[in-house]
Amino acid sequence: MDIAAVNALPYEDFVDVLGNVVEKCPIITAAVWSGRPFLSLAALEAAISEFIDALPESGKEGILRCHPDLAGRDLQSGSLTRESHEEQAGSGMGALNSEEASLMARLNQEYKERFEFPFVICARMHDKENILRQLFARCQNERAVERARGIEEVKKICHLRLQSLVLPDNRL
Amino acid sequence: MDIAAVNALPYEDFVDVLGNVVEKCPIITAAVWSGRPFLSLAALEAAISEFIDALPESGKEGILRCHPDLAGRDLQSGSLTRESHEEQAGSGMGALNSEEASLMARLNQEYKERFEFPFVICARMHDKENILRQLFARCQNERAVERARGIEEVKKICHLRLQSLVLPDNRL
Repeated sequence: MDIAAVNALPYEDFVDVLGNVVEKCPIITAAVWSGRPFLSLAALEAAISEFIDALPESGKEGILRCHPDLAGRDLQSGSLTRESHEEQAGSGMGALNSEEASLMARLNQEYKERFEFPFVICARMHDKENILRQLFARCQNERAVERARGIEEVKKICHLRLQSLVLPDNRL
Repeated sequence: MDIAAVNALPYEDFVDVLGNVVEKCPIITAAVWSGRPFLSLAALEAAISEFIDALPESGKEGILRCHPDLAGRDLQSGSLTRESHEEQAGSGMGALNSEEASLMARLNQEYKERFEFPFVICARMHDKENILRQLFARCQNERAVERARGIEEVKKICHLRLQSLVLPDNRL
């Protein structure tokens, strides 16, 4: 589907197709539909990014809290969204050895206790060793830094999800 | 569960329990968790309401677009959320005769073409005759009026969903 086809979608189909580009936040997709037509995929992505940036800090934390833990209870119970499942599986989160799994669980917990939102990282851009290293390092940050960093990662995830659904501008 | 028990929930459980008090918008529940502890159920409801009011107009339209049509395709395909299913069934939306069903479909479509978001009404507070009358009447409004009216209805739905999940303050 190219951006012209995206622009032609009624809001219901637009939200059906693109509603999870920000995990479990179809409101964001549904909100930016008001700004169509988008001149390019980049313009659609920018509209999403601007909507997120305009939210109060609590709203940004709300977005982060809609994300599952990496290798956490949603992965184990099979209740991840399709997109999250593919991303976590692709980065090896479904195949941790027991030492890695317990380290991941402990660090996720430490992170959540410190920041009151989960560790969010664009899993497709990292392997499991790298994810563990980043999780360990990011546990040391300040809350405001980590909130902003988590939102940066949300935008990277959104970018890759959009690219998997809409033809890139340079292929038009 | 009383408000003290709600205040003691980690965000993951808070969102699991209360994440759909605004239809398909767990980000709102997840955001207001930042403001706990809530002194009362009314204070929790007020925090949700304030978060909604602070959104840009596109965000309010986004909330409305996360709502299913009454007696629409999600009811027919069985893909309503549990809460919406109960509300629509309770107001007779699952038992329209063919004349009512085609009138409802036509008016829903007219409404969406005029306003670019769906007709939202707190179905639990109305029977099917009343819903059809309101839908017909509200099709005549201006967009800004209808956006505000839809958000009022979202808040009524939220109020009743909260009451079904959390003990009212006067029973504490």
